[in-house]
Amino acid sequence: MKSKKILITGAEGFIATNLIFKLSNIKEFNLFGIDSSIAKSSNETFTKDIIKINKLDISSAENLFNVIEGADLIVHLAAKGNVIESISNPLENFNSNAYSTLVLLETMRKANVKNIVFASTGGALMGNTNPPVNENSLPAPISPYGASKLCCEGYLSSYANSFKINSITLRFGNVYGNFSSHKKGVINKWIRNSITNKPIEIFGDGRSTRDYVHVDDICDGIVASIYRLLNTKSPTFERYHLGNNQEISLIELSNIIEEFSNKKLFRNFKGLREGEVIRNCADYNLAKKILNFKPKKKFEKEIPNLYEWIRINEFNH
Amino acid sequence: MKSKKILITGAEGFIATNLIFKLSNIKEFNLFGIDSSIAKSSNETFTKDIIKINKLDISSAENLFNVIEGADLIVHLAAKGNVIESISNPLENFNSNAYSTLVLLETMRKANVKNIVFASTGGALMGNTNPPVNENSLPAPISPYGASKLCCEGYLSSYANSFKINSITLRFGNVYGNFSSHKKGVINKWIRNSITNKPIEIFGDGRSTRDYVHVDDICDGIVASIYRLLNTKSPTFERYHLGNNQEISLIELSNIIEEFSNKKLFRNFKGLREGEVIRNCADYNLAKKILNFKPKKKFEKEIPNLYEWIRINEFNH
Repeated sequence: MKSKKILITGAEGFIATNLIFKLSNIKEFNLFGIDSSIAKSSNETFTKDIIKINKLDISSAENLFNVIEGADLIVHLAAKGNVIESISNPLENFNSNAYSTLVLLETMRKANVKNIVFASTGGALMGNTNPPVNENSLPAPISPYGASKLCCEGYLSSYANSFKINSITLRFGNVYGNFSSHKKGVINKWIRNSITNKPIEIFGDGRSTRDYVHVDDICDGIVASIYRLLNTKSPTFERYHLGNNQEISLIELSNIIEEFSNKKLFRNFKGLREGEVIRNCADYNLAKKILNFKPKKKFEKEIPNLYEWIRINEFNH
Repeated sequence: MKSKKILITGAEGFIATNLIFKLSNIKEFNLFGIDSSIAKSSNETFTKDIIKINKLDISSAENLFNVIEGADLIVHLAAKGNVIESISNPLENFNSNAYSTLVLLETMRKANVKNIVFASTGGALMGNTNPPVNENSLPAPISPYGASKLCCEGYLSSYANSFKINSITLRFGNVYGNFSSHKKGVINKWIRNSITNKPIEIFGDGRSTRDYVHVDDICDGIVASIYRLLNTKSPTFERYHLGNNQEISLIELSNIIEEFSNKKLFRNFKGLREGEVIRNCADYNLAKKILNFKPKKKFEKEIPNLYEWIRINEFNH
């Protein structure tokens, strides 16, 4: 394969940083990045020798055309991903996710950039649809965040047909792993609380479930999608759920952290929060068949690894 | 029923004008309207004695809150509905349809307005999904216009759950009927060309189909939705296809116009246009069951009526 220019948006983010390490081992790929730096991750300190990251906000960038021109493919990971924040400020979330993605697609069209891998969501998109969901399930978002991702998927569908821009949408489960110090997901928060001996908050009765999937497995799915798009001849719009097809409840998660850390966790139960789904679990058979996607990382083993990573990187001991 | 304030957006539009006449006969309803006047319809001359229309653009209106406060229900018909124009300018279409609808929802939330009937589309939303489509079909827009409507549907879904704003989305087939002089749909264009003895343009081989539905039947579906929402006790998000479950090809349409007008139509065949669906037809069984929706108007009888209406209103003879 000839050398290919791969642009990553949200390049200072959690998934992007893991992806950059993985892609940097593939010699045909020439990487460059975009990030608004709004999320204030410090991940660039880890990747600065292997990728140049342009500091810009897609929704207001006057020079976006110049930055993306010549790219063979864009991995669009930039987004505001917090469900609760999307409920506090739906318009801000809309601007960062829906409007920015359309601006990116319009700029791709003008710059003749033909391929995009798009990071969507399984849980927020499907709301309280009975799990496991798959690609034939009807989207039913219950938060503005979920709606913003559905909006993007609709535009990707139309741009494949109207403008021959190829896309693969990957609907992630709940992704966890290293380089997530700026994130506020439940696993990270509870590990921090375990380290600092603080009580954890459980919203609901603790039986809510999530389909946790390790960032390394997600990155394998992204790499497979990149190769698939670069080898596509005709306009395509595809979407896949990337999950673990395994429901883990909040109670189970707290037990796992408690057991291996050998530290008691004090559990504060609170009411369910609006917009958060009760259960989330995706059947990834289509991704397995087409992308050869098969999660390899085991939750019970990777949670202790992440615990160590957070201890070292966030608490310096 | 106590008196109810019903706000209609896009109130100078084609469907709105027909709806206003129908609603003005229901004494419990107190009507008021919003319109940007961008579409330059002259329909207000017909309705000026029965409704006050505020001239404002939802997406930039600073006083939207004051205008909608106190409404019991909003019928949101304002939109840019032209598929071909959405391909020329996706961002303009996005602003008028997706962004404006979110601004309206946000303002409803702040003003505590709880009910909305939303005008969506069957054909553009479903793209080239095999007909007949129904409420279980997966949306697959092939134009930016279709994507903009999917975006709105997603936000309505999330606002029902996150903010208890009740909505009924109605996915219209191809609506035709009186008060459509500012519209550029195929029926109106061909009738005008028949009257002025000009050739008609057929994009594709003429076998493309549409599910035409008369505006009076659509308005019956809207009225049923208004009553259903006003009687709803718990947060709801519902959607229904309103069509005729009947495919009429472009060739058939041209034959119908030719026959009753007794004037030869010269047919110019041109290439298919990007973004336009090939076939469109909706199964309206769910709307029949829940909204008692049953199209009463017969196409072969109503096309001559519209022909006469256009002749009198657009050509003054």
